[in-house]
Amino acid sequence: MARLIGEEDLEDLARGAAVLGTGGGGNPYIGKLLARQAIREHGPVRLVDADEVPDEAVVVQSAMMGAPTVMVEKLPQGEEVVNALLALQDHLGQKVTHVVCGEAGGINSTIPFVAAARTGLPLIDADGMGRAFPELQMLVPGMFGISATPMVVADEKGNTVLLRTTGNRWTERLARSATIEMGCTALIACYAMNGRQVRDTMVLGTLSLCQELGQLIALARAGHTDPVQAVTRRLDGHLVFRGRVADVERRTETGFARGRAALAGLGPYSGSTLELNFQNEHLVAIRDGRVVASVPDLIIVLDSDSAEPITTEEIRYGFRVSVVAAPCDPRWRTEPGLALAGPRYFGYDFGYIPVEERLNAAGSAERGRP
Amino acid sequence: MARLIGEEDLEDLARGAAVLGTGGGGNPYIGKLLARQAIREHGPVRLVDADEVPDEAVVVQSAMMGAPTVMVEKLPQGEEVVNALLALQDHLGQKVTHVVCGEAGGINSTIPFVAAARTGLPLIDADGMGRAFPELQMLVPGMFGISATPMVVADEKGNTVLLRTTGNRWTERLARSATIEMGCTALIACYAMNGRQVRDTMVLGTLSLCQELGQLIALARAGHTDPVQAVTRRLDGHLVFRGRVADVERRTETGFARGRAALAGLGPYSGSTLELNFQNEHLVAIRDGRVVASVPDLIIVLDSDSAEPITTEEIRYGFRVSVVAAPCDPRWRTEPGLALAGPRYFGYDFGYIPVEERLNAAGSAERGRP
Repeated sequence: MARLIGEEDLEDLARGAAVLGTGGGGNPYIGKLLARQAIREHGPVRLVDADEVPDEAVVVQSAMMGAPTVMVEKLPQGEEVVNALLALQDHLGQKVTHVVCGEAGGINSTIPFVAAARTGLPLIDADGMGRAFPELQMLVPGMFGISATPMVVADEKGNTVLLRTTGNRWTERLARSATIEMGCTALIACYAMNGRQVRDTMVLGTLSLCQELGQLIALARAGHTDPVQAVTRRLDGHLVFRGRVADVERRTETGFARGRAALAGLGPYSGSTLELNFQNEHLVAIRDGRVVASVPDLIIVLDSDSAEPITTEEIRYGFRVSVVAAPCDPRWRTEPGLALAGPRYFGYDFGYIPVEERLNAAGSAERGRP
Repeated sequence: MARLIGEEDLEDLARGAAVLGTGGGGNPYIGKLLARQAIREHGPVRLVDADEVPDEAVVVQSAMMGAPTVMVEKLPQGEEVVNALLALQDHLGQKVTHVVCGEAGGINSTIPFVAAARTGLPLIDADGMGRAFPELQMLVPGMFGISATPMVVADEKGNTVLLRTTGNRWTERLARSATIEMGCTALIACYAMNGRQVRDTMVLGTLSLCQELGQLIALARAGHTDPVQAVTRRLDGHLVFRGRVADVERRTETGFARGRAALAGLGPYSGSTLELNFQNEHLVAIRDGRVVASVPDLIIVLDSDSAEPITTEEIRYGFRVSVVAAPCDPRWRTEPGLALAGPRYFGYDFGYIPVEERLNAAGSAERGRP
């Protein structure tokens, strides 16, 4: 059912989006500010369900591309968000009717609100991943043959690059190099599709889920119950670690924030260690030398007290955090899904095992100890 | 006056173009083969003078972009030359009526023949530099405010990138990074302009001059006269060195062939040394520690016996070469010209002095020696 999203909804929404962002997708505080400014100037955004979208709709994804480390220093002004969308509309030769999110994340769930507020277009309650991923070809629609191109990459200086490629991997390469040249962040418009394709290939209800996650965190904080537990339950997830950040290694490389964080266990995890590997998003969690969760499942790092989601560019020595692993959209667990975003794609020499199976096995092993 | 260019014209034309290419602009042997194949398949190309082009013509430059070192290993197939042109035509929404060269060079004077032969369009006897330069903004039309964009970069795989930028320096940056990503070479279509703009801002008669230079070399070889002298005279140039290549340092870096060559003098230059610095093209010639020629003037390296032009990717230890310096198009010697392609732009800490003045000064100093 269509509803209006105003300023007052943005805090929960951006915070919940950063939970699903699994460390990437942008900083929720900045995301909230960007969307708030656009809604203040242009009025609330109409959020519509995918089943309200006509078959013949012209739907475009609006997002920010680049290294989260740089995004926090180089904020979009709003105009380039719309520039990217209009340049794509120009090329399509058809009026865009709806905006949609490419991924969930503190910024990438709110940038589409900027596009929608400034153009007056409705925003669809869906995204392309049900989480965030670092590369452009990692969208569920790609599994169904939907092309990211024609795609526009735009910067704040007024430069635009229009890509037409033979495949989404090439689009990622060419868009990434343009983004790096533009200063490591850029605004994009891509994955044009119709209403039927949205229903068939996108992850539906993502923005409502983001808002609900944000509300659950706020309610738990207010009611002095455990907000980390509230998030974990809502996502059918598992708490895999509680600890303190002991070390972070981070570099901005080939346009990504890459690195690893080492955690020392606290409470029931005292004496244990957890290693997190990330490329914009958390890719793999290794507890005491054993993989406990990997892409495409969600690895979510939350402040242990407040359940504030912590992005990979923010995580610092001394932070007390809880790590939650949650199942991804089931389409990611198929062969085409794992080819796009399984651990082997990211260079790991092990296959994907669903997080619930990994934890069952780990549990059995622990229970089986003499 | 319009005339047809057939297979039999290409050898002289490509060789003369490589002379003006000042080390860059591509290998003339490969350039000849590419144009020959296109003319064999599609018939001769109509070469027209700039003053025959209607004011309202839609003229597009066709060229190869990238590192010459890679061009010789990764030949264009012909189709991508036309793809770039057609993608630009698509975006312009106007039928392209004429093709023109961006620069003089063994490949970049012949690629436009491929475009013209395959599309049946006439080719204009002109180019944008009167020589070759390594970067996209270094064209005389740029001095008169003509934009390189909209511009298309295309690869042999079927990928295209359309650029629209706020200035030609940005176009160079974005096109260069796309070219690198496409494998260090790509085909481009850019600098769309009308007939009046061609006449007002391009260097006219370049292809005829290329052909004439090639003929002069061939005639001198046949008549056992000095072909190096024939080239030097035709270009109002100066022989600045004869010697043997003693050392070459070459690297493919940020998409360019960069390096330096050291020459040991022979004959009247015995005991002297000459250092050549290049970035695709020769930028500076330093004789016995003193600059004798620099961009934007032409620094041309020829085989001492045959006057075969030697590109920066071919130059090797042991080659016996003659170095000729010749004055550039006078518009390069103005302030806007030197801002685009003077020695300071390339990072040297000295200003431009016309080659004839440098040599006069050097001559006086030598004559004044006790």
